[in-house]
Amino acid sequence: LEDALGASNVSTDPLDRVVYARDALPRELLAIRNGILSYQPEVVVWPVSTEQVAEVLAIARKTHTPVTPVSASSGVCGGAIPLKGGIVMDLKRMNQWHAIDTTSHRVTVGPGVIGQDYEETLNRHGLTGGHFPSSMYCSSVGGWINTRAAGQLSTQYGKIEDMVAGLEAVLADGTVIHTLDTPRQAAGPDFNQILTGSEGTLGIITRATLRVFPYPEHRLFESWLFPDVAAGLEGIRQLMVRGARPAVCRLYDEMDTMLTMGALGHPVEGVLVMLVYEGDAELKAAEAAVGRKSLAASGGKPIGEEAARHWWGHRYKISYQQSNILEHAGQILDTIEVAGPWSRLMNLYTTMKEALATHAVVLAHFSHHYLDGANIYFSLVGQGTEGKEPEAYDAMWKAAMDACVAAGGAISHHHGVGSLKAPWMERSHGAGAMHLYRALKKALDPAGILNPGKMGL
Amino acid sequence: LEDALGASNVSTDPLDRVVYARDALPRELLAIRNGILSYQPEVVVWPVSTEQVAEVLAIARKTHTPVTPVSASSGVCGGAIPLKGGIVMDLKRMNQWHAIDTTSHRVTVGPGVIGQDYEETLNRHGLTGGHFPSSMYCSSVGGWINTRAAGQLSTQYGKIEDMVAGLEAVLADGTVIHTLDTPRQAAGPDFNQILTGSEGTLGIITRATLRVFPYPEHRLFESWLFPDVAAGLEGIRQLMVRGARPAVCRLYDEMDTMLTMGALGHPVEGVLVMLVYEGDAELKAAEAAVGRKSLAASGGKPIGEEAARHWWGHRYKISYQQSNILEHAGQILDTIEVAGPWSRLMNLYTTMKEALATHAVVLAHFSHHYLDGANIYFSLVGQGTEGKEPEAYDAMWKAAMDACVAAGGAISHHHGVGSLKAPWMERSHGAGAMHLYRALKKALDPAGILNPGKMGL
Repeated sequence: LEDALGASNVSTDPLDRVVYARDALPRELLAIRNGILSYQPEVVVWPVSTEQVAEVLAIARKTHTPVTPVSASSGVCGGAIPLKGGIVMDLKRMNQWHAIDTTSHRVTVGPGVIGQDYEETLNRHGLTGGHFPSSMYCSSVGGWINTRAAGQLSTQYGKIEDMVAGLEAVLADGTVIHTLDTPRQAAGPDFNQILTGSEGTLGIITRATLRVFPYPEHRLFESWLFPDVAAGLEGIRQLMVRGARPAVCRLYDEMDTMLTMGALGHPVEGVLVMLVYEGDAELKAAEAAVGRKSLAASGGKPIGEEAARHWWGHRYKISYQQSNILEHAGQILDTIEVAGPWSRLMNLYTTMKEALATHAVVLAHFSHHYLDGANIYFSLVGQGTEGKEPEAYDAMWKAAMDACVAAGGAISHHHGVGSLKAPWMERSHGAGAMHLYRALKKALDPAGILNPGKMGL
Repeated sequence: LEDALGASNVSTDPLDRVVYARDALPRELLAIRNGILSYQPEVVVWPVSTEQVAEVLAIARKTHTPVTPVSASSGVCGGAIPLKGGIVMDLKRMNQWHAIDTTSHRVTVGPGVIGQDYEETLNRHGLTGGHFPSSMYCSSVGGWINTRAAGQLSTQYGKIEDMVAGLEAVLADGTVIHTLDTPRQAAGPDFNQILTGSEGTLGIITRATLRVFPYPEHRLFESWLFPDVAAGLEGIRQLMVRGARPAVCRLYDEMDTMLTMGALGHPVEGVLVMLVYEGDAELKAAEAAVGRKSLAASGGKPIGEEAARHWWGHRYKISYQQSNILEHAGQILDTIEVAGPWSRLMNLYTTMKEALATHAVVLAHFSHHYLDGANIYFSLVGQGTEGKEPEAYDAMWKAAMDACVAAGGAISHHHGVGSLKAPWMERSHGAGAMHLYRALKKALDPAGILNPGKMGL
């Protein structure tokens, strides 16, 4: 590896091996706090080019060594944990800007570009990425694509898979793929959508051409109060049906509303909806006007800008300091995000809430909306026994995922699967679709060197 | 086969075998007009259920018999031609409506539902499919998904891949897949996007859950004239940048404009742009207002509603009677549709136009628009030698596709690949992506029974 990459891009230092033993999966952070370090790479490598990625894979093939690709290691599902040891390949040094095409609103970057750098660089060109995960300060472009991420403004800008115009990737056998980056084509399966969301199990993404957007000239904030979750969701659904697409649209259930508004010094009963429209001033004013009619018709009352503006100002506060909030012995915390069509959504919400009630205090919000459905984002705080936090954590997740699958929800809306949700992949997708995924895996990575132990493969 | 499907769902009648010898590929229609019938199935089957599809595939596996899935046979790329004989599987009798979910704006149908029936049934429920290929009267839902189709209103409603929420399919080995139909998920590759566009090479789609839309309450028509193609395209690009999304947005180049406006009795010089906005009256009025500013700023002059309304009234006139226009001996006709990002679009247009000029009279329009690019749709009329039409046709296509690949265009924006464009698949996608497609094919259909000879596999 040192011959291929240079000594400064390879490390077997014990400290590096500990650093790369985990990502931001709370289960693993809890275990480590209890002094248990379950997984460690034998070596960490930092390739700087596609050729170096291919060379590492060639060595891994020859020596049957697992390769776990990582970049910012901010994932919360264990996707970047080296379950089988071997090589951790950190792509953070592949943070090149290969092209900025302001005419076509697209850029080509390396997978190691960090969210904050991505957005700030785009802003200087009058552009926005439109992709704002709460991990904006500590996640990477490569991680977004691999985990099929969605940002907080996805209701307007779409999800990462909508932004991927082209990819370069190295397969396990060393083949380098460059997908054709035209705005669309009708020439076979969508190769971009095979690699997107594959969490490093099918190939290593080494370059991405992403669609970007004009920097918004205008921004509007609104907060609304509804009598209950069902009324608020129906208001949002009607707003979507009429064609408004707020960048932010977040409905907080009763408990989440109580805490959120209480923290602002305005305790209320009911269900809070916060909206942010951004973009062309004329168009967004029209959308907001249409949205107001839909929300009012479903029983909503406007309560000013403050709550929405406060959320906006604090929207990245949690993710990059998540490990700090696990400091209380016995306490377990996590978020669980699922999705379903409107016709199954209320049942998905109540089924999961009920299943989780014995495990944790349950808050929920609905923060990504579609014409055909929405996501649900549960925030959970549970109290276990000191030293037994991982067991309490596992029980909470089992209750959540079993309920989600039973109610026809997607086991993840935007965090991904990793090792955490792997046991539910087959039940969620069905044996048929998993057979397809496994056939694909076997065809592309017969020795199973790429990120083994993940995704239920 | 008769045991599995019943005698009335199986035919070896010579007339049926001739009927299923072709789709709407002009090359084949020209050959047949010259008395040459190159390909014929040995047997035609009409399964009525997923189970029957699986039974046919089991028989095909056992007997190493090729299976070519078809439904409306309206494809213009030869995707439905049984190149290797064997079984033609017509899915037209699988035209069931399994579910209509007006709350979630989704429906579940069989692949044999014909476009006109699809839209008219949705309209009765206050919905629209939003998918309007010019073959609306003679194409099927299954064909749309398999060829990765785009309708005339795609700039607003999206393309068929955006509408696919879930699929049921039978793989060559008999595995039945049901993809989870949540509005989105972050749980692996997008299985829907592996089957969509695969033209029957990876599996037989037996059921689809598609996103649909509220029936539009309002429709606005506009026609504009620009000094040249570059100015018109820049106006449209700016309109897209500001966020307007007209359902129809068609720019006709100088020659196409001359003929189109001449036929209306208003011969003009310049470049015609026709727009149709539809949907919520308030929102679409705002979009049209924003659009007008963008078009005017780029040198456009409004010329009233007539051209756009006339196009709307005749928008399905060509496709279902295409074979009629091949009646003149020696004449060759076809359409070639490609796509590219804005930064490569004018070069793609001029390169292909130049390459085609010695083969045919070339008209072009730009009819599907994106923030990052557009398609180009060439209409071609060439005069060859009587009896030698196929050779002239092949030379025209070779010139077009070589030029397209050289200029970085997609070899198809929405017609698909079939047998016609198969020779350019590897050059267009590159060896890496085709390696991925072939690995997938080999994993899922090792004996190669599904639609052999297509897609450059």
